[in-house]
Amino acid sequence: MLIVMDHAATPQQVEAVMEQVRACGFRPVPMPGAERTAVCVLGNTGPVNPAPFENLPGVKECIRVTKPYKLVSRETQPQDTVVTVAGTPMGGPAIPVLIAGPCAVESRDQMFRTVEFLVSHGVKLIRGGVYKPRTSPYAFQGLGEKGLEILAEIKQQFPVGVVTEALDHENFNAVEPVADMIQIGARNMQNFSLLRRAGESRKPILLKRGLAATLEELLMAAEYILAGGNRQVVVCERGVRTFADHTRNTLDLSAVAVVKQLSHLPIVVDPSHAAGKWPYVIPLALAGVAAGAHGLLVEVHPDPARALSDGPQSLTFDKFAELQEKVQRLLAATQQG
Amino acid sequence: MLIVMDHAATPQQVEAVMEQVRACGFRPVPMPGAERTAVCVLGNTGPVNPAPFENLPGVKECIRVTKPYKLVSRETQPQDTVVTVAGTPMGGPAIPVLIAGPCAVESRDQMFRTVEFLVSHGVKLIRGGVYKPRTSPYAFQGLGEKGLEILAEIKQQFPVGVVTEALDHENFNAVEPVADMIQIGARNMQNFSLLRRAGESRKPILLKRGLAATLEELLMAAEYILAGGNRQVVVCERGVRTFADHTRNTLDLSAVAVVKQLSHLPIVVDPSHAAGKWPYVIPLALAGVAAGAHGLLVEVHPDPARALSDGPQSLTFDKFAELQEKVQRLLAATQQG
Amino acid sequence: MLIVMDHAATPQQVEAVMEQVRACGFRPVPMPGAERTAVCVLGNTGPVNPAPFENLPGVKECIRVTKPYKLVSRETQPQDTVVTVAGTPMGGPAIPVLIAGPCAVESRDQMFRTVEFLVSHGVKLIRGGVYKPRTSPYAFQGLGEKGLEILAEIKQQFPVGVVTEALDHENFNAVEPVADMIQIGARNMQNFSLLRRAGESRKPILLKRGLAATLEELLMAAEYILAGGNRQVVVCERGVRTFADHTRNTLDLSAVAVVKQLSHLPIVVDPSHAAGKWPYVIPLALAGVAAGAHGLLVEVHPDPARALSDGPQSLTFDKFAELQEKVQRLLAATQQG
Amino acid sequence: MLIVMDHAATPQQVEAVMEQVRACGFRPVPMPGAERTAVCVLGNTGPVNPAPFENLPGVKECIRVTKPYKLVSRETQPQDTVVTVAGTPMGGPAIPVLIAGPCAVESRDQMFRTVEFLVSHGVKLIRGGVYKPRTSPYAFQGLGEKGLEILAEIKQQFPVGVVTEALDHENFNAVEPVADMIQIGARNMQNFSLLRRAGESRKPILLKRGLAATLEELLMAAEYILAGGNRQVVVCERGVRTFADHTRNTLDLSAVAVVKQLSHLPIVVDPSHAAGKWPYVIPLALAGVAAGAHGLLVEVHPDPARALSDGPQSLTFDKFAELQEKVQRLLAATQQG
Repeated sequence: MLIVMDHAATPQQVEAVMEQVRACGFRPVPMPGAERTAVCVLGNTGPVNPAPFENLPGVKECIRVTKPYKLVSRETQPQDTVVTVAGTPMGGPAIPVLIAGPCAVESRDQMFRTVEFLVSHGVKLIRGGVYKPRTSPYAFQGLGEKGLEILAEIKQQFPVGVVTEALDHENFNAVEPVADMIQIGARNMQNFSLLRRAGESRKPILLKRGLAATLEELLMAAEYILAGGNRQVVVCERGVRTFADHTRNTLDLSAVAVVKQLSHLPIVVDPSHAAGKWPYVIPLALAGVAAGAHGLLVEVHPDPARALSDGPQSLTFDKFAELQEKVQRLLAATQQG
Repeated sequence: MLIVMDHAATPQQVEAVMEQVRACGFRPVPMPGAERTAVCVLGNTGPVNPAPFENLPGVKECIRVTKPYKLVSRETQPQDTVVTVAGTPMGGPAIPVLIAGPCAVESRDQMFRTVEFLVSHGVKLIRGGVYKPRTSPYAFQGLGEKGLEILAEIKQQFPVGVVTEALDHENFNAVEPVADMIQIGARNMQNFSLLRRAGESRKPILLKRGLAATLEELLMAAEYILAGGNRQVVVCERGVRTFADHTRNTLDLSAVAVVKQLSHLPIVVDPSHAAGKWPYVIPLALAGVAAGAHGLLVEVHPDPARALSDGPQSLTFDKFAELQEKVQRLLAATQQG
Repeated sequence: MLIVMDHAATPQQVEAVMEQVRACGFRPVPMPGAERTAVCVLGNTGPVNPAPFENLPGVKECIRVTKPYKLVSRETQPQDTVVTVAGTPMGGPAIPVLIAGPCAVESRDQMFRTVEFLVSHGVKLIRGGVYKPRTSPYAFQGLGEKGLEILAEIKQQFPVGVVTEALDHENFNAVEPVADMIQIGARNMQNFSLLRRAGESRKPILLKRGLAATLEELLMAAEYILAGGNRQVVVCERGVRTFADHTRNTLDLSAVAVVKQLSHLPIVVDPSHAAGKWPYVIPLALAGVAAGAHGLLVEVHPDPARALSDGPQSLTFDKFAELQEKVQRLLAATQQG
Repeated sequence: MLIVMDHAATPQQVEAVMEQVRACGFRPVPMPGAERTAVCVLGNTGPVNPAPFENLPGVKECIRVTKPYKLVSRETQPQDTVVTVAGTPMGGPAIPVLIAGPCAVESRDQMFRTVEFLVSHGVKLIRGGVYKPRTSPYAFQGLGEKGLEILAEIKQQFPVGVVTEALDHENFNAVEPVADMIQIGARNMQNFSLLRRAGESRKPILLKRGLAATLEELLMAAEYILAGGNRQVVVCERGVRTFADHTRNTLDLSAVAVVKQLSHLPIVVDPSHAAGKWPYVIPLALAGVAAGAHGLLVEVHPDPARALSDGPQSLTFDKFAELQEKVQRLLAATQQG
């Protein structure tokens, strides 16, 4: 249940409501908003009786939340969350955002060439992993600290924000001061320890759907982060694992419409990991935008054939320019209404 | 292998080539085209040696076909097939087509109301099943012959073509004279006997991807029809079965790009069966068009709540009008280039 | 609902009950049993009120059936169905049965060699396809009528029954006089027209689970056959299609326990099609028996490397003998209790 | 490649080989064995030329390893690994082991009652989670340290070893002194940071297959642990996620045979998490043993209806006794050969 306070409610009134929630054996979570505060009631099984709360001073209304996720539910917050990353808004009415860059930071030269190109095409958010989750212990695991230094330099030299992944507490601590948005990858979507760490952060989080995760599980994973106090979460559809063998994963674009219905959080689409092969990235990117995604996460590399990871699914500069032009035309058309 | 004849090759030269193919232990299939004839060599395992053929009189070139499907492969026919249904072209550069109508023909009144509405919105191809594949033997199985009569009357009264499904030889025979396009449904995609019957027909065939079919299997199913002599085949992505439980099926839009790369056949998308719930139909329809589909198959019903089948995924007239307007705006934008 | 008649109920009393069912707007299906008759009430949505029936003369009790499938449900018939094929019982307390033989009948010699070997090892039911469902139109499609003649000869010369597949009405008609059990394959599990044909037959039917079929769908497919009047149905778990790539399909052995709980029909397991590679056939066969299957369907070939289909998953004679010995030891152990 | 040293090779000779490996640009990993040492060559793409190594003093032979996993591959170590947990051997010729206990440690009383019962039935390894991975942040997360104290007390009072899960570095450190075997759960199978921590431990690791993991990915995850220096790894098949809705997960028993073919590591089966409902646990457990598993992981609870997690899939004491008796009968039968 969500107890919505009047916009003129005093802090004392909010505290009294929270005390009452505790007295009923539940756990209150205050949710300060732009116009009014609300108190989320957690820890119940079954419906909560609103009677002990609805006549307390300052209480405007009690809203029942029927989903297992609370803070991420649209029942709790009807209006869209807009997450702002390095000045760029994602979600709600904001223009869909392109987050682009290589799978992994490989060298200063590779990053500078890529970012220069992307900036010249108006891209404002750069992706690039420095800690890489790799199936094989013998594969390239990312540049680590050296990669972070490159990202920091990029931020000094170019008007961009950077998105990079953290795999555990240790490298979450390391990337947190540098990153403008911290990615939790598909394989870590239910790494609850990492989700709790993300909840303590004040940096925006990009949470990717697991390879076999239902949307309820994805939203419950986001709930871990919000319950920890970090409300700046963007979820990402990047394809799920099925029997289909013509792409690396099967992009489930219905996730965009369904997440937008169930939750107020922004959702972006990663056509690169879904496709696994660059020729399918552009059509899937366009489909993602048409489906209503709040943004795209696209892999671009100056020389895909020599990429240390994910080369086959990376776009060349030329192909990225083509994608961007097509996306803009599509957006122009769909925005008209 | 494909033996392409010179445009000036005589019938005798073609026959001589076919004879030579037979002499080598293979099976020749002549493929007459608009400008030139080709002979497809079937029955080989491993690559075919072109030497016995390439110097025969009238032979222009020998093209190796590396896929298990031959006639549907883009290697065999680089240019797009355009299938014309009741005057409306599907495939290649043609404007994506909307095929709309109820899941099942339920009554004369229901069909007339629906078609009147659709025609007033410019729709030229009407869908409606009279023989329905139903999971339960106790569920509504379609109106059968009576439904066919309604479809025939629709064709007389309105400037539309009709698309309807056949489940076996018997009702293929029944629908063939009336239908402008005959659907083979997902559950019958590997009903090889029905595919052979479709191969003998001269009506265009709409072949839906099976619930767990790979794209190679889909193309092999289409190959059965082409190998039987019917080249008018449109394939349809309608979602596959996965663990995901928020939609009826998981729409695999990468199929659009991949089929267009591998084959010259048109591919359309059915967002209704994929979604299973009408609120997700419009975003998935738009995504399908953005991904490059040659058309959409959409369920519309005058009163979805009372539909005898698939009500939850059927659009009302108002919602269909919204879909159509959004699709047209999208097409206008993407066609500009 | 199921209306169970007293064992002394007269035919007139049964007819009166059926008349009352019709009068209530439902459809009665009489189900004669060894000891008593029952009447199944079909055509209802929602629960049926037993009041109009329970006091009619000769009525013993009214049993509510909560599942969408009626005749196959254990609610309707608590005791196990035993299907007898050429004298060999399958289901209930009967010893699990081995059905063995090649994927396809390839020649008189191949079949005679195989059957001679199998008979010498005590096998009583032989499998072998003469009409083969093949992904490619260019692959070996079975010997057809010539194959049926070989099967007929086998039956004359050896004390065995034969199990063979039908793909459509036409070849159902052809195999029906020869086969002791007619298989409906995975790709045809929802070929409702073929299921109806099987319902008209009096030969036992082996119904394989589709590649992406839920157990409810499998039981509904069986319901088509029982509703048509043929109660001799054995279902078969043969693996489903998943992302797993180390076997041809993923054998879902929980299906054995679940089907036995939900239905009175026998269930057998096909480890050959699940494995796709012979080294995994024996462990999966043993697992199937341990899980409680009423039988196994195993592919055996005198020379797997030269088999026209499914060679890689076929056991040699030696390996089959090993399988049989291990199965018997397992059965001896589990039967002791 | 694996460079196998003569049993009489000196440490200097081993070091010389390693130096040569480095000189060729690869990474040598020494693998001391009971009878002889080997050197694994890592870091190569493509096959390694054995010429520079095979004539060095002390080298017996060079074995090509074709798989992406090296140390876990049966090519590298043909004989079975036997992992001994608190005196109980798992793997190879050892009698399959039963690991039983509740999903979560809930209280001292619950654990003592359960362990008393299990010990009286001869069980030697107890499972019980104190750090629980839960989909919801609001669900019971385990007793943590207090639970560890209970496990420590259990070990003092009963002749058993304990198996418990670690979710991150912090609780790996906490459970390591107490646990006899540390579980890495399905959701953490590709938590590479946790795998590396497990590689540094000298406690046996129980590594569960991820919900959508291929067997190659499972073995690569194990490779992370072995590459870190911990060779005591047992993998666990616990069901994968598919469209099938009659069980919680689909138990893929072919994994047992395939892992035993590809790797020398032991593999156990968890029928409880696969089934999700207790009535299916016994048949799946028996199937697992028949398939050749080296052990079973089974959930048992004194009062499943009141369990704080996984109640529906937990066996009562009576049902566990039934399972154990059936497993023993099965083992007696299959061991005879």
